[in-house]
Amino acid sequence: MISKIKNFIQPYKITSGKNFRLKDFDPADTAHLRSKEQAEELLSQGIKRVRALQEKLYAQDQWSLLLIFQAMDAAGKDGAIKHVMSGVNPQGCQVFSFKEPSREELDHDFLWRTTCRLPERGRIGIFNRSYYEEVLTVCVHPKILQNQKLPKKLITKDIFGQRYESIRDLEKHLARNGTSVHKFFLNISKQEQHKRLLRRLDDPCRNWKFSMADLREREYWDAYMKAYEETIRKTATKNAPWYVVPANNKWFSRLVIAAAVIDALESLDLAFPQLNARQKKELLSAKRSLA
Amino acid sequence: MISKIKNFIQPYKITSGKNFRLKDFDPADTAHLRSKEQAEELLSQGIKRVRALQEKLYAQDQWSLLLIFQAMDAAGKDGAIKHVMSGVNPQGCQVFSFKEPSREELDHDFLWRTTCRLPERGRIGIFNRSYYEEVLTVCVHPKILQNQKLPKKLITKDIFGQRYESIRDLEKHLARNGTSVHKFFLNISKQEQHKRLLRRLDDPCRNWKFSMADLREREYWDAYMKAYEETIRKTATKNAPWYVVPANNKWFSRLVIAAAVIDALESLDLAFPQLNARQKKELLSAKRSLA
Repeated sequence: MISKIKNFIQPYKITSGKNFRLKDFDPADTAHLRSKEQAEELLSQGIKRVRALQEKLYAQDQWSLLLIFQAMDAAGKDGAIKHVMSGVNPQGCQVFSFKEPSREELDHDFLWRTTCRLPERGRIGIFNRSYYEEVLTVCVHPKILQNQKLPKKLITKDIFGQRYESIRDLEKHLARNGTSVHKFFLNISKQEQHKRLLRRLDDPCRNWKFSMADLREREYWDAYMKAYEETIRKTATKNAPWYVVPANNKWFSRLVIAAAVIDALESLDLAFPQLNARQKKELLSAKRSLA
Repeated sequence: MISKIKNFIQPYKITSGKNFRLKDFDPADTAHLRSKEQAEELLSQGIKRVRALQEKLYAQDQWSLLLIFQAMDAAGKDGAIKHVMSGVNPQGCQVFSFKEPSREELDHDFLWRTTCRLPERGRIGIFNRSYYEEVLTVCVHPKILQNQKLPKKLITKDIFGQRYESIRDLEKHLARNGTSVHKFFLNISKQEQHKRLLRRLDDPCRNWKFSMADLREREYWDAYMKAYEETIRKTATKNAPWYVVPANNKWFSRLVIAAAVIDALESLDLAFPQLNARQKKELLSAKRSLA
C-alpha cells in the first residue's frame, strides 16, 4: 500500500528546470484515483509512515528536512500542512509563516529571515511561504524593491537572475550540510480559486480567511503563473526539487505531499543510533541496578 | 594626510587568490614608516575619518559593512578592534566573537550562526573569528568534523572545497544585497608570537589572556599557515577582499586596518538622506511652529 503512494510523486516532481512548462500540468489531475475515500485511506496510511520516519530522523539527529509551501491564495497550503503533518510529534516539527517582511527583516538581505529559522538537525521545518516570495510577489510587483532599503545601484536589471542564483547556492549549501530541501507549488486553476474565494465570503466559518488583497492579487493571475514558471525553471534541482502539486482537489494534493515527504525521508539513511559495546554494557548494569 | 593613509592598503589587499603565496608577505613590514609616533598620528586622523563616514552610513541606512578578523593567537585581533573602532558610535557598530560552536549552533549548517548575527543596514559588523574557522582550525584538525553532527556520507574528501564554495557564494550574495565584506588576516611571525605568549606569562595584567590551548595550537603553526594560504587563495575576491596585514608591529597593523575601513566606506555611495520638496516644506512649517 505504501509502495503505491510513491506512484503519486514522479509525475509532479521537477528536478531540472529545463523545458519546464506550467501548462503541461493539470490542476485537476487526480492520477488514476477515482474516489476521495480511496485517497483518504491511502493518506491515513501515509501519515503513519511519516510519523514513524520522523521518529528515526529525530533520534538520529543528523539530517533535517525543510518543506517549503508556495501557492496562490486559497490553494490549500494551510490545510495541507494541517492534514499531512498533524500526525507528527510537534517536538520534531516547526512551522514558520512568512508574511510581509518586518523593518528588522528588511534591514538584512532577502535570505536572512528564513535562514535564521531553518530547522535544526533531527527536525522537520515547514515554511508557509518563504524566500521564494522575493522572486514571485516581488517579481510581479517590482516596485516593492523600492521599499526594500537596497542601495539604488544594486537594483539592476538582472536582480531576479541574481536572486535565483542566491537561492540555488543556498539550497546547494544546505543539501551538502544535512538539510534536505523540498518545495511544493500547490497548483490550482483560476476557476477553482474563484469558487473557493466565494465560499470564504458565503461561509461564516471561513469569513476570517478572506482578504481584499486576495481579490487584488487575482487580477495579476497570469503574471504570477509566469513568475512561478520562471522560478521553477531556475531553481528546480536534484538536490532541492519542486513538486507541482495538482491542487484543485484537496484530497489529492495532500496525498501527493505525503508521498513526497515519505520519499524524501526514505532517501536519507535514517536509523536509530546504534550503541557500542561499552554503552551496551552500561545499559546492562543500569538494568541490574534497577532490578 | 588622509590620502596618505590609503597608500597602506594596496600592498596588502588581495582581490584574487591566483598566485597568492603567504611567504611573499613579511609580518614585520612597516612600509616606509620609521616611527611609531608617525603611525599613531596618522591613525588618530584615520579614526576621525572612520567616525565621520560611519555617521553617513548610519543615516543613509542602506549599506552595511562586515569586517572579519582572523589570526593566530596573540596576533592582536582584540587590540586592533579596540583601537581602530573605539571612536565609532557603538549604536552603529556590533562586535561578535565566535568561539567553539554551541550545541544549538552545531545543530545547523556551518554558516548559520554567523548569518544570524550579520550587521543590519547602516551598521558596521565585526566578527572576531568567523565561519573561516571552519576551513582553518577544522582543516588543521579534521577530526573535529566527527563532532559536527554531520551525516557520515556528507563528510567527503572534497568537504573543504565545498566549504570554500559555500563561503564564496555567501559573500557574493551579501555584496549584491548591500553588505560589503572585508577580511583581515593579522599576519605575525612565529617568533613574534613566542615573545607575546611569554609576555602573557610574565605580566600579571596579561595573565588572564594566556591559555594552554594557545601553546598546543602553536605546534601546528605550519599547518595553520598552509590553511590560511589555501583559504585566501580560494576566497579572495573583488567583492570580498582579504587583507594580509603585517602584524609584528601593532601600531602598523592598526594603521593598515583603519586605512582599509576608510577605503571600504569611501567606495560606497554614502550620503546623508536628501529631503524632497514636501519634506522640506514640513521642516519649514515645523520650524515656524517652534518659533
